[in-house]
Formats: sequence, structure tokens, C-alpha cells
Amino acid sequence: MAELKDLTKRSENYSQWYNELVVKADLAEQSAVRGCMVIKPYGYAIWEKMQRQLDDMFKATGHVNAYFPLLIPKSFLSREAEHVEGFAKECAVVTHHRLKTSPDGKGVVVDPEARLEEELIIRPTSETIIWNTYKNWIHSYRDLPILCNQWANVMRWEMRTRLFLRTAEFLWQEGHTAHATREEAEAEAVRMLNVYADFAEKHMALPVIKGIKSANERFAGALETYTIEAMMQDGKALQSGTSHFLGQNFAKAFDVQFINKENKAEYVWATSWGVSTRLMGALIMTHSDDNGLVLPPTLAPIQVVVIPIYKNEEQLQQIDEKADKIIAGLKALGISVKYDNADNKRPGFKFADYELKGVPVRLAIGCRDIENNTVEIMRRDTLEKQTVSFDGIELYIKQLLDEIQANIYQKALALRQSMTREVNSYEEFKEEIEKGGFLLCHWDGTPETEEKIKEETKATIRCIPLDSDKTPGKCMVTGKPSAQRVIFARSY
Amino acid sequence: MAELKDLTKRSENYSQWYNELVVKADLAEQSAVRGCMVIKPYGYAIWEKMQRQLDDMFKATGHVNAYFPLLIPKSFLSREAEHVEGFAKECAVVTHHRLKTSPDGKGVVVDPEARLEEELIIRPTSETIIWNTYKNWIHSYRDLPILCNQWANVMRWEMRTRLFLRTAEFLWQEGHTAHATREEAEAEAVRMLNVYADFAEKHMALPVIKGIKSANERFAGALETYTIEAMMQDGKALQSGTSHFLGQNFAKAFDVQFINKENKAEYVWATSWGVSTRLMGALIMTHSDDNGLVLPPTLAPIQVVVIPIYKNEEQLQQIDEKADKIIAGLKALGISVKYDNADNKRPGFKFADYELKGVPVRLAIGCRDIENNTVEIMRRDTLEKQTVSFDGIELYIKQLLDEIQANIYQKALALRQSMTREVNSYEEFKEEIEKGGFLLCHWDGTPETEEKIKEETKATIRCIPLDSDKTPGKCMVTGKPSAQRVIFARSY
Repeated sequence: MAELKDLTKRSENYSQWYNELVVKADLAEQSAVRGCMVIKPYGYAIWEKMQRQLDDMFKATGHVNAYFPLLIPKSFLSREAEHVEGFAKECAVVTHHRLKTSPDGKGVVVDPEARLEEELIIRPTSETIIWNTYKNWIHSYRDLPILCNQWANVMRWEMRTRLFLRTAEFLWQEGHTAHATREEAEAEAVRMLNVYADFAEKHMALPVIKGIKSANERFAGALETYTIEAMMQDGKALQSGTSHFLGQNFAKAFDVQFINKENKAEYVWATSWGVSTRLMGALIMTHSDDNGLVLPPTLAPIQVVVIPIYKNEEQLQQIDEKADKIIAGLKALGISVKYDNADNKRPGFKFADYELKGVPVRLAIGCRDIENNTVEIMRRDTLEKQTVSFDGIELYIKQLLDEIQANIYQKALALRQSMTREVNSYEEFKEEIEKGGFLLCHWDGTPETEEKIKEETKATIRCIPLDSDKTPGKCMVTGKPSAQRVIFARSY
Repeated sequence: MAELKDLTKRSENYSQWYNELVVKADLAEQSAVRGCMVIKPYGYAIWEKMQRQLDDMFKATGHVNAYFPLLIPKSFLSREAEHVEGFAKECAVVTHHRLKTSPDGKGVVVDPEARLEEELIIRPTSETIIWNTYKNWIHSYRDLPILCNQWANVMRWEMRTRLFLRTAEFLWQEGHTAHATREEAEAEAVRMLNVYADFAEKHMALPVIKGIKSANERFAGALETYTIEAMMQDGKALQSGTSHFLGQNFAKAFDVQFINKENKAEYVWATSWGVSTRLMGALIMTHSDDNGLVLPPTLAPIQVVVIPIYKNEEQLQQIDEKADKIIAGLKALGISVKYDNADNKRPGFKFADYELKGVPVRLAIGCRDIENNTVEIMRRDTLEKQTVSFDGIELYIKQLLDEIQANIYQKALALRQSMTREVNSYEEFKEEIEKGGFLLCHWDGTPETEEKIKEETKATIRCIPLDSDKTPGKCMVTGKPSAQRVIFARSY
């Protein structure tokens, strides 16, 4: 009990609050391997719900799953020049394929004779190995489009890691599509951006801004990177998903041509797109509070918990009966329910524990409830309690879950709106950026200006928003012309 | 079309038939990385169906999913003495964490300054990293049992690889459970053996024999290994899933103790169990024929394909209408249907292609069918055709799918029975083993005798069957006492 209350307050130290919450809510923990996490069952159950929903959305848009090798020949990485610059630097390198008993007999050492001819890299992303495969799959326009997705683990040797937000190994999905025309590939990249935005808003209750990355922030090897950007409660931005229009870069690097309808050879057009376990970080940081997690009902492994409050076996038996009916009714509506009548923990401990775990709705049933035909309901998002009649409780709860889903989305949206403002001078910018949030500013479109702003303020362009005011203006730093305001923020 | 017909016959070269079939049916292919496969969308769709079904069965028996790191510190492997002997030898070793531009500027080389202090191994199985984690999860009997499963990729540096059957990287699930008592852990190992057997028989239509492995074939670090063994059409055995009772070996190696109800510290009892993409190999080799794959309806990505046969647009339109009704009716019954009215392939080509892909039921609708209110049905398992009335066709097909599922199971079972026989002398054994199949023999229970038989005949003990005649006898090699007959076979 004491342990549960120990959570640092967001206002005291937001970063520490997050780190503690991830561990205390049993979502994930550090492993024995630097920068690699263990995703614990409760955290994984949330990730599984995300996966299932995303996978359904990918399939509904015509995609299929496949699996490509974990290891990539070193030489593949340098085929696409920009790609290697962006990715090849920090990665796990496999150099040997055998261990042997150490000379002292007390352990194992790498067998120097088992050195690989060419080193293999644990995939940091799979464009190279996949395009090397597509070369054999694509001959004619009839073989296109290819709309593949892969659920996989990837590895980037990050120096500073944080659970879910930045880990050396993480889980993700990566879509890799191949098309006959530029237009089709561009449309695909935008289609998947919209799938991500829909998923974030409808299922994660996460308001996002759809936009285009500036050249500095673009994916290594892409012609255009689309992004969904979310704002965390501390006003920092979190890039939550990206979709890349890759042009013909990878087709050229791996010589993937097709015979078009006019019987001419042409390079194939490509996209790639991905979201990762980083979304878990976004989910946690957007909705949770000083009592613990707040989960959107659609992704909560347990949507409703029922806790009996009793003094003796006879009372418990009466409550069990009542609870059985409620649980059967809720399950019939497709709601996941847990009945916690464990007798080795007090109700107060259970209350705090399920609050920490972010269960959206808690029901408590005591003796007086049995007499009055009532149930006490607490909603996790507002912590409001009310006592309602047992009759019709199932539908009431179903509606309440919908209401919670809508409410936490609106709350996050309101926060973002309150922390988004237009800034017109660089002086004002330097002051405002310290307060956090999104700053809508005019920018001259050059990497140099963006770089200068980043160096001086640690803020970057999160995106050039797609659905926003397109009024031109003058760059706040250089005074040069600007086509539209872009979003600056500090970010995770 | 010509390409489709090119499949080698099983009777000519069973091994080549298999290798060709995996590739021609678009299930998997070799990648650019030695021994690592690409699982193509059609193959992956079958694997996904297996995963979904198994995952449901694991959850129904109280298990939860989690995720543990891909990389394991080298020193972990040598903690459990037998385990390192069995696993550490051939594995992928990560020694560095950075690449840098090569001196000539034309590519990348490993940065010698980025050498890891301790090498990391790509998991060949995860007992060590998981028990190192469980150490922090387990303190009291109240923390037990832990019933975790993980879906993951693993890597074993195999010298000779074959698609699905033996690959350097493969996909699998690995359950790792922790218990307070020996009895509970033993019961868990047997429970999961039964889950695997149920899955194999009901969903893969794969008859299996449940048994115990001899000491020679036991998992490295286990006290007992349970196995399900299947027979392929060439009479060779294929180990299809194993469940291990690990005793307290890993708890001792990683010092995982708990305080029991009597307030005493005790080592935790363990099991682990897994099935892998190897099951794809079993599925293919058990049911398929010289025309291609034969898939059990429960695992077929497409259960029914509908092909129109027409000469002009008007005819196609009439057939489209008819097909729409059938498809809607089948989908309403939860049957997955594909309507293939692509006009760039002839019906004959489509017929051969869907036969190759193992689609259980094919419907062909032509003009005469429209006139007669009929449909031509072909079932893939027997290749029998019949023309049936359109009325009530949906339920007829649903029953037919059940019949196919039952029939291919019975067919496989009959083959296994016809190729299983008792053998009483070693001389007879040496002759009989050349004919393939399972030989039920008496054995004196010693590793030495088993080793001698393996060296001389390439046959191993597949298992000591659990549900079989327990009449004692005398070892066919040494004449020493034998508790019961065991199954010998050559195996994949």
C-alpha cells in the first residue's frame, strides 16, 4: 500500500513520474542488457490490443503480413547513401557464429575461428533486406502493388534510453509497399498517415497533428516523411508514427525494375511506414495522473473491476451472487471484467492498485448495496464516484466507457489547444519555448535556420501541418518569406 | 501454367518435392542471409492462423504474454551447465555496437572502438534471460505461479538448413512458467503437452503420439522432456512440439528462491514449452500431394475459391450475380472466400494455381450452371468433383469443410498406422528401418544402447509413448530388461 502511494507527482518531476509509473504499474522494466526492456504481462496486454487493432486496420486497407530476416548483411546498408548515414552508425553487429568452452573450463568464449566473412547487422529498420527481396518478386506491372507489413523487433544502439520512449530493442510494425507509379506511392503514404491518425485518435484517445517533416527531420532515404505529432502533458512533442514516400531510392539502390504497360523498364516506387512500442509511452504520458495510469477503455486489458466489501463469509456470498449477475451482463456486452474477491488484500489496497493500473471503471459492492439494490461506481478519468441502481447497470457502464473514451480525448485536446500559440518574433520564441507547448511560427524553409533554432533553443520543427492556416508570412529569424506557419516544440 | 506443373513427384524425390512446393506455393524462400528465410505473405497467413489459435488456447489455460530481450549476455549461457553444452555452441554473437565509414569512403566497416565489454548472444531460447528476470518478480509463494508466454524470433546457427524445418532464424512461442511445487510444475508440463496435441490434431489435422524423450534427446537443462511426434508421408518422424519439466535447475542457476507458506526459502520449480514455424513444415509434409499443398480448412487463409467460366461480359455478369449470393452466404457462416474473376488468366491456370495453394474447396460456375441452378464443387483433398444444386449450397460447403478436415486427419492417421509395427530383433530392425515408419521396440533404457543404434542405423528414439502398451520385454540389442516398447524412427 505504502509503495503504491509513492508515485512522484507530475508537477514535482514529470520525467521521474513517468519512469516510476511505467515500473510501478507493471508495464515494463530494465533488463540485464543495457537499453533493452522487459515488457511485462500487463504492459504487453495493452500492446497486444494496439497490435490487434492496427493489424485489422492494415488488413482492411489491403495489406498482408510477411516476415523478413532479423540480420542484414553489412554491405546492404551502404547501398542507399543517405540511409546509411542515418541508420548504420549505432547498431548491433554480429561478427561470429560460435562460442566454445573457455580454456579454464569455467564458461564460454567466442571461437575466433567462427568469424563471419561479412558482418551482419541486427535490423535497425528493414528497407534494405526487403528491397533486396522485392527484386525477385517484381518483374511486371502485374506484380504490383505489393502491400506488405511486418511485425518485428528492431535494434538501434541508443546511448540514452527510457522505457518505451527510446530503447535499444523495440517492437514495431513496418509496412513496405511497392508501386508502379509515383502518384500511387504518394497516395499510399498519405493513406497510412491517416490510418495512424485514426488509430491514435479513436483508440488511443490521442489527438494528433498530421504534417510533413522538414528536410532535417526526414527519414534517411525518403523524399517525404509524413508524421503524426502528439503533445504530452508537459508540453513536449512526441512523434507517434511516420509514413515515408521513398521515391525510387531503394529501387535504384537494389536495382528493382518492372516492365510497365508500355513494355518499358522502370524503377519501382516505394513507401514505408511504422509505429512502435513508443506508442505505449505516448499513451501513458498523455492521459495518466498522479494516482497512476489512465487507460482509454478501448485499450484497457481490464475495463471494469468489481470489488466486494464484506466483513464475513455470509456477506461475501451475497455479494458474489450480485457480482456474478453484473459480470455476466457486462461480458455479454463484450466488456472485459475482473472480479477481485481475493481475501489477502484490503479493499483500500485494491482501490489504489486498480487506480494505479488505470482500470477505467471500478465497481464496489457492499452490504448496504445489497439492501438498496445499488452499486458504487468510480470512473478512473475523473475519480468521480456515484451510487447507481443495479437495474440496467450494464448498459449504463457501456455508455460510461464510451464517455470516458471521449472525455480523455477531449481533455488531451483541450490541453494541446491551451498550449499551442502563434509566435511572431524570435525573441518571443525564446521566452515561450521555455513554457513548453507547440509554437506556430513562420520559417524560411531552410535547414540552416532550423539548425540555428535547434542549437539555440533545443526546439525543432515537429511538422509542417497539413490541415492548417496557409497564410504566408515572414520567417521569425531571417525575415525571409514563409509559405505557412510550422510547429516548433521541444520533443521526446 | 507450365511452371505450376513442374512440381517433382513425391515418389521420385520426396525431399525435392518438399523444397519445391514451399517455394512454388509462395510459402517461403531463402534470403540473402545464410540459413535465414523470408516467410511470404501466403505462408505467413497460415502461421498467423496457427498463432491465433494457439494463443487462444494458452490464454484459456491461464497464460499471459510478455516480451523479453533478444540479446543475452554471454555469461548467462554458462550458468546452467547442461544448458550451455546443448545450446551455446552455434549461435550469433554480437561483439560491436557501431559501424563507421570505411577509410576509402565507399561503404562501412565495424568501428573497432565500439567493442562490447561482454559479448551478447542472439537468443537461441530464453530460459536464461527469463530466469534472471524472474529473480526480481518472485519473493513469496503469493507471487506464484507465473505463467508467461512469449512470441519471438530465435536463432541457432544451423549448418544445414531447410525452409521451415531447420532455419538459422525461426519464429516460435516459448512458455516459461514458475511454480511453488514440483507437482504443479510437472502438471503444467503435461498440460501444455496436451494443449499441443489438441492443437495438432484438431487444427492441423496432424495425428501425434505423446511421449517422453529419452535422456539423449532431452532438452539441455530439463529433467523431463515431453514431446508430440508426427509421421511424415515418407515415414520419417518430425518432432512437432516439446514441453519441458525443468525441475529447479534454472532457479538454482539464477538463484530464484521464494518464501513458502511455512516461511522457508525454497527454489522455484520451472517448465518451458515451445512450438515453432517448424510446424509449417509438418503441415506441408503431412497432407500435401503431387498437385501441391493440401491445407486443413481450419488453417487455410482461403477456404473456398469461386471461379467463373465465361465467354463474354454478359455471361460474366450473370455469373457475378450468382457468385455474389454464394459468397455472401458463405461469409455469413464465417467461411473465408475469394472470388477470382481476373480476366488475364485462364480458368485452367487458376484451377492449377489454387490446387497448388491448397485451397480446400473450389467452386466453378459456368453458363450451364446458371441455366441449371447448379455449381461445380471440387474438394482439394480427394480432387473429386461434383455438380450440386445452388439451393442450400452454403450449409453443404460448411459440412464439406468439416468432412475434409476429418478426412485428411484420418488419412494421415491411417498412413501412420500402416507404417508403425513391432520389431523384435536388431537384425529385423536394421532391415525394417530402411522402409521408414515407426518401429516399436524393446530397449534397455541406456543412452549407450540408443547411441549404438543411432550410429549404426541413423534411427533415434522418438519417444517413450505415454498412452501405449506397457508390457515389459527384452532389449532387442542387449537382451536386458525393458519396461515397455519405445518408438524408433529416422527423423527430420
